[in-house]
Amino acid sequence: MQLLKNKIMEEGKVLPGNVLKVDSFLNHQIDPALMQAIGDEFAEKFGQAGLTKILTLESSGIAPSVMAGLNLGIPVVFARKRKSLTQNSDLYSASVYSYTKQESNEISVSKAHICENDTLLIIDDFLANGQAVLGLLDIAEQSGASIAGVGIVIEKGFQPGGDMLREKGLRVESLAIISSLDNNQVAFKEAAVR
Amino acid sequence: MQLLKNKIMEEGKVLPGNVLKVDSFLNHQIDPALMQAIGDEFAEKFGQAGLTKILTLESSGIAPSVMAGLNLGIPVVFARKRKSLTQNSDLYSASVYSYTKQESNEISVSKAHICENDTLLIIDDFLANGQAVLGLLDIAEQSGASIAGVGIVIEKGFQPGGDMLREKGLRVESLAIISSLDNNQVAFKEAAVR
Repeated sequence: MQLLKNKIMEEGKVLPGNVLKVDSFLNHQIDPALMQAIGDEFAEKFGQAGLTKILTLESSGIAPSVMAGLNLGIPVVFARKRKSLTQNSDLYSASVYSYTKQESNEISVSKAHICENDTLLIIDDFLANGQAVLGLLDIAEQSGASIAGVGIVIEKGFQPGGDMLREKGLRVESLAIISSLDNNQVAFKEAAVR
Repeated sequence: MQLLKNKIMEEGKVLPGNVLKVDSFLNHQIDPALMQAIGDEFAEKFGQAGLTKILTLESSGIAPSVMAGLNLGIPVVFARKRKSLTQNSDLYSASVYSYTKQESNEISVSKAHICENDTLLIIDDFLANGQAVLGLLDIAEQSGASIAGVGIVIEKGFQPGGDMLREKGLRVESLAIISSLDNNQVAFKEAAVR
Protein backbone atom coordinates (compact mmCIF):
# COMPACT_ATOMS: atom_id res chain seq x y z
CA MET A 1 0.00 0.00 0.00
CA GLN A 2 1.94 2.95 -1.35
CA LEU A 3 0.26 5.63 0.80
CA LEU A 4 1.29 3.76 3.94
CA LYS A 5 4.83 3.13 2.71
CA ASN A 6 5.22 6.81 1.91
CA LYS A 7 4.06 7.73 5.40
CA ILE A 8 6.51 5.28 6.96
CA MET A 9 9.36 6.72 4.88
CA GLU A 10 8.40 10.28 5.81
CA GLU A 11 7.63 9.88 9.49
CA GLY A 12 8.87 6.51 10.75
CA LYS A 13 11.88 6.53 13.05
CA VAL A 14 14.25 3.61 13.37
CA LEU A 15 15.40 3.08 16.96
CA PRO A 16 18.00 0.67 18.34
CA GLY A 17 16.87 -2.95 18.56
CA ASN A 18 15.06 -3.02 15.22
CA VAL A 19 12.27 -0.83 16.55
CA LEU A 20 10.30 1.17 14.01
CA LYS A 21 8.54 4.00 15.76
CA VAL A 22 5.43 5.19 13.97
CA ASP A 23 4.01 7.18 16.86
CA SER A 24 3.13 10.13 14.65
CA PHE A 25 0.36 8.35 12.73
CA LEU A 26 -0.41 4.88 14.16
CA ASN A 27 0.66 4.11 17.74
CA HIS A 28 0.22 7.34 19.68
CA GLN A 29 -0.91 10.07 17.35
CA ILE A 30 -3.35 8.68 14.78
CA ASP A 31 -3.94 9.92 11.24
CA PRO A 32 -7.66 9.26 10.73
CA ALA A 33 -7.63 9.63 6.93
CA LEU A 34 -4.76 7.14 6.65
CA MET A 35 -6.63 4.78 8.98
CA GLN A 36 -9.63 5.01 6.68
CA ALA A 37 -7.47 4.18 3.65
CA ILE A 38 -6.00 1.23 5.57
CA GLY A 39 -9.45 0.05 6.64
CA ASP A 40 -10.69 0.29 3.07
CA GLU A 41 -7.70 -1.76 1.89
CA PHE A 42 -8.43 -4.52 4.41
CA ALA A 43 -12.09 -4.42 3.39
CA GLU A 44 -11.15 -4.81 -0.26
CA LYS A 45 -8.80 -7.73 0.45
CA PHE A 46 -11.18 -9.63 2.75
CA GLY A 47 -14.57 -8.33 1.59
CA GLN A 48 -15.50 -11.62 -0.09
CA ALA A 49 -14.60 -13.79 2.89
CA GLY A 50 -18.02 -13.74 4.56
CA LEU A 51 -16.73 -11.85 7.59
CA THR A 52 -19.04 -11.29 10.54
CA LYS A 53 -16.63 -9.55 12.94
CA ILE A 54 -13.16 -8.10 13.25
CA LEU A 55 -11.02 -9.18 16.20
CA THR A 56 -8.16 -6.94 17.28
CA LEU A 57 -6.11 -5.98 20.35
CA GLU A 58 -6.11 -2.72 22.29
CA SER A 59 -4.94 -0.06 21.71
CA SER A 60 -3.24 0.44 18.36
CA GLY A 61 -5.33 -2.14 16.53
CA ILE A 62 -8.54 -0.28 17.21
CA ALA A 63 -8.34 2.59 14.71
CA PRO A 64 -7.60 0.56 11.56
CA SER A 65 -10.10 -2.11 12.66
CA VAL A 66 -12.93 0.35 13.20
CA MET A 67 -12.35 1.82 9.76
CA ALA A 68 -12.39 -1.66 8.18
CA GLY A 69 -15.53 -2.50 10.15
CA LEU A 70 -17.18 0.72 8.98
CA ASN A 71 -16.50 -0.18 5.36
CA LEU A 72 -17.68 -3.78 5.78
CA GLY A 73 -20.66 -3.02 8.03
CA ILE A 74 -19.53 -5.38 10.79
CA PRO A 75 -18.60 -4.92 14.48
CA VAL A 76 -15.10 -4.82 15.91
CA VAL A 77 -14.16 -6.67 19.10
CA PHE A 78 -10.94 -5.67 20.80
CA ALA A 79 -9.19 -8.03 23.20
CA ARG A 80 -8.29 -6.40 26.48
CA LYS A 81 -4.88 -6.67 28.04
CA ARG A 82 -6.22 -7.32 31.53
CA LYS A 83 -9.51 -7.79 33.27
CA SER A 84 -11.45 -4.83 34.56
CA LEU A 85 -13.81 -4.98 37.52
CA THR A 86 -16.77 -4.25 35.28
CA GLN A 87 -16.28 -7.50 33.41
CA ASN A 88 -17.54 -10.86 34.54
CA SER A 89 -15.52 -14.05 34.47
CA ASP A 90 -17.01 -15.36 31.23
CA LEU A 91 -13.89 -14.75 29.20
CA TYR A 92 -11.78 -16.39 26.56
CA SER A 93 -8.19 -15.60 27.47
CA ALA A 94 -4.66 -16.23 26.24
CA SER A 95 -1.17 -15.22 27.30
CA VAL A 96 0.90 -12.99 25.00
CA TYR A 97 4.59 -12.31 25.42
CA SER A 98 5.76 -8.90 24.25
CA TYR A 99 9.41 -8.78 23.20
CA THR A 100 9.23 -4.98 23.16
CA LYS A 101 7.96 -4.70 26.70
CA GLN A 102 9.66 -7.89 27.92
CA GLU A 103 6.59 -9.07 29.77
CA SER A 104 3.62 -11.36 29.37
CA ASN A 105 0.10 -10.00 29.33
CA GLU A 106 -3.12 -11.85 29.56
CA ILE A 107 -5.49 -10.84 26.79
CA SER A 108 -9.16 -11.63 26.99
CA VAL A 109 -12.44 -11.38 25.12
CA SER A 110 -15.89 -11.74 26.60
CA LYS A 111 -17.67 -14.92 25.52
CA ALA A 112 -20.64 -12.69 24.74
CA HIS A 113 -18.96 -11.19 21.70
CA ILE A 114 -17.57 -14.01 19.57
CA CYS A 115 -19.07 -17.42 18.90
CA GLU A 116 -18.87 -20.43 16.63
CA ASN A 117 -21.06 -18.78 14.01
CA ASP A 118 -18.59 -15.95 13.51
CA THR A 119 -16.11 -15.60 10.67
CA LEU A 120 -13.33 -13.40 11.95
CA LEU A 121 -10.74 -11.15 10.41
CA ILE A 122 -7.89 -10.61 12.86
CA ILE A 123 -6.27 -7.18 12.53
CA ASP A 124 -3.21 -5.83 14.30
CA ASP A 125 -0.91 -2.86 13.82
CA PHE A 126 2.43 -4.71 13.81
CA LEU A 127 3.55 -8.25 13.06
CA ALA A 128 7.03 -9.12 14.29
CA ASN A 129 7.32 -12.34 16.28
CA GLY A 130 3.62 -13.03 15.91
CA GLN A 131 2.87 -13.50 19.60
CA ALA A 132 -0.12 -11.14 19.66
CA VAL A 133 -1.71 -12.77 16.62
CA LEU A 134 -1.15 -16.22 18.16
CA GLY A 135 -3.00 -15.04 21.26
CA LEU A 136 -5.89 -13.73 19.18
CA LEU A 137 -5.98 -16.99 17.19
CA ASP A 138 -6.05 -18.92 20.47
CA ILE A 139 -9.06 -16.90 21.62
CA ALA A 140 -10.79 -17.28 18.25
CA GLU A 141 -10.27 -21.04 18.34
CA GLN A 142 -11.63 -21.28 21.88
CA SER A 143 -14.81 -19.62 20.62
CA GLY A 144 -15.15 -22.02 17.70
CA ALA A 145 -15.25 -19.12 15.23
CA SER A 146 -13.84 -19.45 11.72
CA ILE A 147 -10.81 -17.38 10.85
CA ALA A 148 -10.78 -15.81 7.39
CA GLY A 149 -7.34 -14.35 7.75
CA VAL A 150 -5.06 -11.85 9.34
CA GLY A 151 -4.69 -8.21 8.30
CA ILE A 152 -1.52 -6.44 9.41
CA VAL A 153 -0.66 -2.79 8.95
CA ILE A 154 3.15 -3.15 9.17
CA GLU A 155 4.96 -6.49 9.03
CA LYS A 156 8.60 -6.79 9.99
CA GLY A 157 9.43 -9.31 7.33
CA PHE A 158 12.87 -9.97 8.81
CA GLN A 159 11.31 -11.34 11.99
CA PRO A 160 9.72 -14.78 12.09
CA GLY A 161 6.03 -14.02 12.78
CA GLY A 162 4.81 -13.69 9.20
CA ASP A 163 6.41 -16.92 7.98
CA MET A 164 5.22 -18.76 11.08
CA LEU A 165 1.61 -17.72 10.50
CA ARG A 166 1.68 -18.40 6.76
CA GLU A 167 3.15 -21.84 7.39
CA LYS A 168 0.04 -22.58 9.45
CA GLY A 169 -1.96 -22.03 6.26
CA LEU A 170 -3.35 -18.68 7.36
CA ARG A 171 -4.00 -15.95 4.85
CA VAL A 172 -1.88 -13.04 6.08
CA GLU A 173 -2.21 -9.71 4.27
CA SER A 174 0.30 -7.08 5.36
CA LEU A 175 -0.07 -3.60 3.88
CA ALA A 176 3.63 -2.81 4.26
CA ILE A 177 6.33 -5.43 4.70
CA ILE A 178 9.69 -4.21 5.91
CA SER A 179 12.64 -6.27 4.78
CA SER A 180 15.28 -4.49 6.83
CA LEU A 181 15.89 -1.68 9.29
CA ASP A 182 19.66 -1.97 9.00
CA ASN A 183 21.70 1.24 9.16
CA ASN A 184 18.59 3.10 10.38
CA GLN A 185 17.08 2.76 6.89
CA VAL A 186 13.62 1.37 6.17
CA ALA A 187 13.63 -1.08 3.25
CA PHE A 188 10.39 -2.64 1.99
CA LYS A 189 9.68 -5.84 0.19
CA GLU A 190 6.65 -6.36 -1.97
CA ALA A 191 3.53 -7.68 -0.21
CA ALA A 192 3.31 -11.45 -0.21
CA VAL A 193 0.48 -12.78 -2.38
CA ARG A 194 -1.28 -16.02 -1.53
CA MET B 1 -28.23 12.14 20.55
CA GLN B 2 -31.22 9.90 20.01
CA LEU B 3 -29.40 7.12 18.13
CA LEU B 4 -27.01 6.71 21.05
CA LYS B 5 -29.76 6.82 23.67
CA ASN B 6 -31.68 4.16 21.76
CA LYS B 7 -28.60 1.94 21.67
CA ILE B 8 -28.05 2.41 25.41
CA MET B 9 -31.68 1.49 26.10
CA GLU B 10 -31.47 -1.58 23.86
CA GLU B 11 -28.07 -2.94 24.83
CA GLY B 12 -26.82 -1.23 28.00
CA LYS B 13 -26.74 -3.33 31.16
CA VAL B 14 -26.98 -1.82 34.61
CA LEU B 15 -24.70 -3.57 37.10
CA PRO B 16 -24.40 -3.10 40.87
CA GLY B 17 -22.53 0.03 41.95
CA ASN B 18 -24.06 2.34 39.34
CA VAL B 19 -22.09 0.69 36.56
CA LEU B 20 -23.54 0.97 33.06
CA LYS B 21 -22.02 -1.71 30.87
CA VAL B 22 -22.00 -0.83 27.19
CA ASP B 23 -19.56 -3.52 26.14
CA SER B 24 -21.63 -4.48 23.11
CA PHE B 25 -21.02 -1.26 21.19
CA LEU B 26 -18.47 1.02 22.91
CA ASN B 27 -16.08 -0.52 25.45
CA HIS B 28 -15.27 -3.99 24.15
CA GLN B 29 -17.24 -4.66 21.01
CA ILE B 30 -17.44 -1.50 18.89
CA ASP B 31 -20.21 -0.50 16.50
CA PRO B 32 -18.31 1.39 13.78
CA ALA B 33 -21.39 3.03 12.22
CA LEU B 34 -22.49 4.34 15.61
CA MET B 35 -18.94 5.58 16.25
CA GLN B 36 -19.10 7.48 12.96
CA ALA B 37 -22.42 9.08 13.95
CA ILE B 38 -20.89 10.02 17.31
CA GLY B 39 -17.78 11.42 15.65
CA ASP B 40 -19.92 13.44 13.25
CA GLU B 41 -21.91 14.83 16.19
CA PHE B 42 -18.75 15.97 17.98
CA ALA B 43 -17.50 17.48 14.73
CA GLU B 44 -20.74 19.41 14.32
CA LYS B 45 -20.65 20.71 17.90
CA PHE B 46 -16.99 21.73 17.88
CA GLY B 47 -16.36 22.28 14.17
CA GLN B 48 -16.17 26.07 14.50
CA ALA B 49 -13.74 26.01 17.45
CA GLY B 50 -10.53 26.10 15.39
CA LEU B 51 -9.47 22.64 16.52
CA THR B 52 -6.04 21.35 15.53
CA LYS B 53 -6.06 18.00 17.38
CA ILE B 54 -8.20 15.66 19.42
CA LEU B 55 -6.80 14.38 22.73
CA THR B 56 -8.24 11.18 24.18
CA LEU B 57 -7.31 8.24 26.39
CA GLU B 58 -6.76 4.61 25.43
CA SER B 59 -8.64 2.41 24.74
CA SER B 60 -12.34 3.25 24.55
CA GLY B 61 -11.83 6.89 23.61
CA ILE B 62 -10.03 5.97 20.41
CA ALA B 63 -12.91 4.88 18.15
CA PRO B 64 -15.17 7.95 18.62
CA SER B 65 -12.12 10.25 18.48
CA VAL B 66 -10.84 8.81 15.21
CA MET B 67 -14.26 9.25 13.63
CA ALA B 68 -14.43 12.86 14.82
CA GLY B 69 -10.91 13.45 13.55
CA LEU B 70 -11.82 11.94 10.18
CA ASN B 71 -14.73 14.33 9.84
CA LEU B 72 -12.69 17.36 10.95
CA GLY B 73 -9.50 16.45 9.07
CA ILE B 74 -7.30 16.59 12.19
CA PRO B 75 -5.12 14.05 14.02
CA VAL B 76 -6.01 12.21 17.21
CA VAL B 77 -3.54 11.77 20.07
CA PHE B 78 -4.33 9.15 22.66
CA ALA B 79 -2.77 9.30 26.12
CA ARG B 80 -1.22 6.03 27.18
CA LYS B 81 -1.87 4.46 30.53
CA ARG B 82 1.77 3.52 31.09
CA LYS B 83 5.09 3.95 29.40
CA SER B 84 6.31 1.48 26.83
CA LEU B 85 9.95 0.76 26.14
CA THR B 86 9.67 2.25 22.66
CA GLN B 87 8.90 5.66 24.07
CA ASN B 88 11.47 8.16 25.27
CA SER B 89 11.24 10.16 28.47
CA ASP B 90 9.97 13.34 26.80
CA LEU B 91 6.47 12.99 28.16
CA TYR B 92 3.72 15.05 29.67
CA SER B 93 2.17 12.89 32.38
CA ALA B 94 -0.59 13.00 34.98
CA SER B 95 -2.02 10.65 37.55
CA VAL B 96 -5.62 9.44 37.16
CA TYR B 97 -7.57 7.61 39.82
CA SER B 98 -10.14 5.13 38.55
CA TYR B 99 -13.04 4.53 40.92
CA THR B 100 -14.10 1.54 38.82
CA LYS B 101 -10.72 -0.17 39.00
CA GLN B 102 -9.81 1.32 42.41
CA GLU B 103 -6.31 2.19 41.31
CA SER B 104 -4.26 5.09 40.03
CA ASN B 105 -2.71 5.03 36.59
CA GLU B 106 -0.17 7.33 35.13
CA ILE B 107 -1.26 8.63 31.76
CA SER B 108 1.18 10.24 29.39
CA VAL B 109 1.51 11.94 26.04
CA SER B 110 4.71 12.49 24.11
CA LYS B 111 5.80 16.12 23.99
CA ALA B 112 6.24 15.62 20.25
CA HIS B 113 2.49 15.47 19.66
CA ILE B 114 0.89 18.44 21.40
CA CYS B 115 2.22 21.96 21.76
CA GLU B 116 1.23 25.51 22.64
CA ASN B 117 -0.04 26.18 19.12
CA ASP B 118 -2.66 23.43 19.38
CA THR B 119 -6.34 23.90 20.08
CA LEU B 120 -7.55 20.64 21.55
CA LEU B 121 -10.87 18.86 21.83
CA ILE B 122 -10.73 16.34 24.66
CA ILE B 123 -12.90 13.27 24.01
CA ASP B 124 -13.67 10.39 26.34
CA ASP B 125 -16.19 7.56 26.41
CA PHE B 126 -17.55 8.09 29.94
CA LEU B 127 -17.72 11.00 32.35
CA ALA B 128 -18.48 10.06 35.96
CA ASN B 129 -16.15 11.54 38.56
CA GLY B 130 -14.16 13.37 35.92
CA GLN B 131 -10.75 12.06 36.93
CA ALA B 132 -9.71 10.98 33.44
CA VAL B 133 -10.68 14.33 31.92
CA LEU B 134 -8.80 16.16 34.71
CA GLY B 135 -5.71 14.13 33.82
CA LEU B 136 -6.07 15.01 30.13
CA LEU B 137 -6.61 18.68 31.02
CA ASP B 138 -3.47 18.57 33.17
CA ILE B 139 -1.48 17.23 30.22
CA ALA B 140 -3.00 19.77 27.84
CA GLU B 141 -2.13 22.60 30.23
CA GLN B 142 1.45 21.36 30.59
CA SER B 143 1.79 21.59 26.81
CA GLY B 144 0.44 25.14 26.71
CA ALA B 145 -2.28 24.13 24.24
CA SER B 146 -5.68 25.80 24.20
CA ILE B 147 -8.67 23.66 25.16
CA ALA B 148 -11.80 24.20 23.09
CA GLY B 149 -13.90 21.83 25.14
CA VAL B 150 -14.69 18.31 26.19
CA GLY B 151 -16.79 15.83 24.21
CA ILE B 152 -18.21 12.91 26.16
CA VAL B 153 -20.11 9.95 24.77
CA ILE B 154 -21.99 9.03 27.98
CA GLU B 155 -22.14 11.25 31.06
CA LYS B 156 -23.37 9.93 34.37
CA GLY B 157 -25.18 13.11 35.34
CA PHE B 158 -25.78 11.87 38.89
CA GLN B 159 -22.02 11.78 39.55
CA PRO B 160 -20.04 14.98 40.13
CA GLY B 161 -17.63 15.08 37.16
CA GLY B 162 -19.83 17.01 34.73
CA ASP B 163 -20.72 19.78 37.17
CA MET B 164 -17.13 20.01 38.36
CA LEU B 165 -15.83 20.50 34.79
CA ARG B 166 -18.57 22.98 33.83
CA GLU B 167 -17.90 25.00 36.97
CA LYS B 168 -14.34 25.42 35.71
CA GLY B 169 -15.86 27.21 32.71
CA LEU B 170 -15.17 24.37 30.31
CA ARG B 171 -17.56 23.66 27.47
CA VAL B 172 -18.65 20.05 28.05
CA GLU B 173 -20.84 18.39 25.42
CA SER B 174 -22.17 14.98 26.40
CA LEU B 175 -24.12 13.06 23.78
CA ALA B 176 -26.16 11.15 26.36
CA ILE B 177 -26.57 12.26 29.98
CA ILE B 178 -27.88 9.66 32.38
CA SER B 179 -29.82 11.06 35.33
CA SER B 180 -30.25 7.78 37.19
CA LEU B 181 -29.51 4.07 37.11
CA ASP B 182 -31.78 3.35 40.09
CA ASN B 183 -33.75 0.09 40.05
CA ASN B 184 -31.60 -1.12 37.14
CA GLN B 185 -33.33 1.39 34.86
CA VAL B 186 -31.54 3.88 32.64
CA ALA B 187 -33.08 7.36 32.83
CA PHE B 188 -31.77 10.22 30.68
CA LYS B 189 -31.82 13.93 31.12
CA GLU B 190 -31.61 16.33 28.21
CA ALA B 191 -28.12 17.38 27.14
CA ALA B 192 -26.88 20.46 28.94
CA VAL B 193 -26.57 23.50 26.69
CA ARG B 194 -24.00 26.15 27.33
